[in-house]
Amino acid sequence: MKKLLDDPDNAVEDSLSGFAAAHAGEVEVHGLGGSGPHFVTRSGGPVTGKVGLVSGGGSGHEPLHAGFVGDGMLDAAVPGAVFTSPTPDQIVPAIQAADAGAGVLAIVKNYTGDILNFETAVELAEAEDVEVATVVVNDDVAVEDSLYTAGRRGVAGTVAVEKIAGAAAVRGDDLAGVKAVAERVIANVRSMGVALAACTVPHVGRPSFDLGDDEIEVGIGIHGEPGRHRMPMASATEITKLLVDPVVQDLQLGQGDRVLLFVNGMGGTPQSELYVVYGRARTLLEERGVTVARSLVGNYVTSLEMQGASVTVLRLDDELEQLWDAPVKTPALHW
Amino acid sequence: MKKLLDDPDNAVEDSLSGFAAAHAGEVEVHGLGGSGPHFVTRSGGPVTGKVGLVSGGGSGHEPLHAGFVGDGMLDAAVPGAVFTSPTPDQIVPAIQAADAGAGVLAIVKNYTGDILNFETAVELAEAEDVEVATVVVNDDVAVEDSLYTAGRRGVAGTVAVEKIAGAAAVRGDDLAGVKAVAERVIANVRSMGVALAACTVPHVGRPSFDLGDDEIEVGIGIHGEPGRHRMPMASATEITKLLVDPVVQDLQLGQGDRVLLFVNGMGGTPQSELYVVYGRARTLLEERGVTVARSLVGNYVTSLEMQGASVTVLRLDDELEQLWDAPVKTPALHW
Repeated sequence: MKKLLDDPDNAVEDSLSGFAAAHAGEVEVHGLGGSGPHFVTRSGGPVTGKVGLVSGGGSGHEPLHAGFVGDGMLDAAVPGAVFTSPTPDQIVPAIQAADAGAGVLAIVKNYTGDILNFETAVELAEAEDVEVATVVVNDDVAVEDSLYTAGRRGVAGTVAVEKIAGAAAVRGDDLAGVKAVAERVIANVRSMGVALAACTVPHVGRPSFDLGDDEIEVGIGIHGEPGRHRMPMASATEITKLLVDPVVQDLQLGQGDRVLLFVNGMGGTPQSELYVVYGRARTLLEERGVTVARSLVGNYVTSLEMQGASVTVLRLDDELEQLWDAPVKTPALHW
Repeated sequence: MKKLLDDPDNAVEDSLSGFAAAHAGEVEVHGLGGSGPHFVTRSGGPVTGKVGLVSGGGSGHEPLHAGFVGDGMLDAAVPGAVFTSPTPDQIVPAIQAADAGAGVLAIVKNYTGDILNFETAVELAEAEDVEVATVVVNDDVAVEDSLYTAGRRGVAGTVAVEKIAGAAAVRGDDLAGVKAVAERVIANVRSMGVALAACTVPHVGRPSFDLGDDEIEVGIGIHGEPGRHRMPMASATEITKLLVDPVVQDLQLGQGDRVLLFVNGMGGTPQSELYVVYGRARTLLEERGVTVARSLVGNYVTSLEMQGASVTVLRLDDELEQLWDAPVKTPALHW
């Protein structure tokens, strides 16, 4: 294993420490140097009267979630160990830190461990008089149920949920309102991914799965969980079609629909290839009469250095589009 | 070779086509579909009265340079074939498109092919009555002369040159003034990189070089050119020291100096590891009394999917810091 790390067991701490220094003044990382559980908040604390937003999950998907802490998106993020759910003792102080009196929305990706630990944490925070609502993101159309979930997995669509719910909170929506917006995004966003090569979890030290030199895994999860099927390497056009078709079908997209098209890199694929996939996906959508009104291309929900990409489509309406366009200022998303 | 491409010989065209669609309204890509030579300009054309900025080089380093076209940075970018200098017939129309009457600064990375082709293009553009000045970026301290250069190579420091010169042009500096600012950045910026694994050029189809399972190349160039030496894999702390020390020595940095610290990913290394390197580099600088006043961490000057990173340090003064902070709005850099 060749990684730019010191002690693999300390990878999350060391990375968060660099992240904190690079973004001082924007975000604050709590728990460094063994001072407590790790969580990340906006510098300056929550905004009085605004609903707080908290998300979290295993590390290894950077910039998700800590890179999305800031104006217009998350108030706090909770990074677990690599590919491992954060613990309730991390989540509770993050929820408390995000609360400015208007309650907190917890945005949870659908993995059994995340669900259980957030549930426990929410109960504990509520016992401390924080009002908390929860939404579960489950945008991955590749598989029903999986190695780590009951029901569909939560993957790159999470970025859209966090961005749009964040804008609703800034707009002044109350907790029920922000939750309703988040659920509308979840109901309208779908994703599917492909892996060309596996990643290696630092403290494991060997690739998460084996793929042959000419083999790809279609429908891969963001932890390298099995997808729909393995197949021989194919062209970008063929692969993109295998990702876009199930998404379009699940959303029942057609003539007159307007969407956000998000091509996400898994971490080890060059940006130039992501743009090729984006171009192919856009053509496939347009051939069905779907208008691509907004776009995002880049590494936003990664799986360490996995090679591959995912396609996320969000069906837009005027309100979702306005909320997507609203200003955002975080380490990883800024406009 | 597993890449998300159709015809490898068409990789640049296909990627630029996706880039154009994803960033419509921000940038315009010329020459798609065989309609002429490839170059990229800001949508809406150059800004009247402002010095135009043009840069270019081989593709495969995305987002450099096309991702930096926009308000506060480049007016035009010229992408060559992968790892291959753009040709004069691409560069000339880019220079012409960037000219709004105040002249054009060409920012060239120090590679023999780039130098020659830009020289030819500048002569041709001048014959068409465009005033052009040229600066050559040569920030890589790893080697004097190399496979592709006389003198030091131009690498990630180019981002700082483009950003800061771009801000000087927006401020209203004339061509001589913008050139002087760019040269001041070049005089004060140094970089050095390391590769953990090679990349594969699409139309070649095999890795650019071989590295053993436990071997790294220190001082690597952005095309996989040989560096200073190969050595066994080491810790992030040890590797970062090998990158930072030559940079500090070359810039003669010490007590009281204030710098921008830029940790750049080569394309295939997770962001989490870049932050580890950033943290280690920052500590090494602070131990010498150097203040890290500004930071940038991410994949900005890549080598396709190469695994590795580079450290760039720019010695700041008040003016360079203000110009770095000035607003920028491009596909890849935005604040």
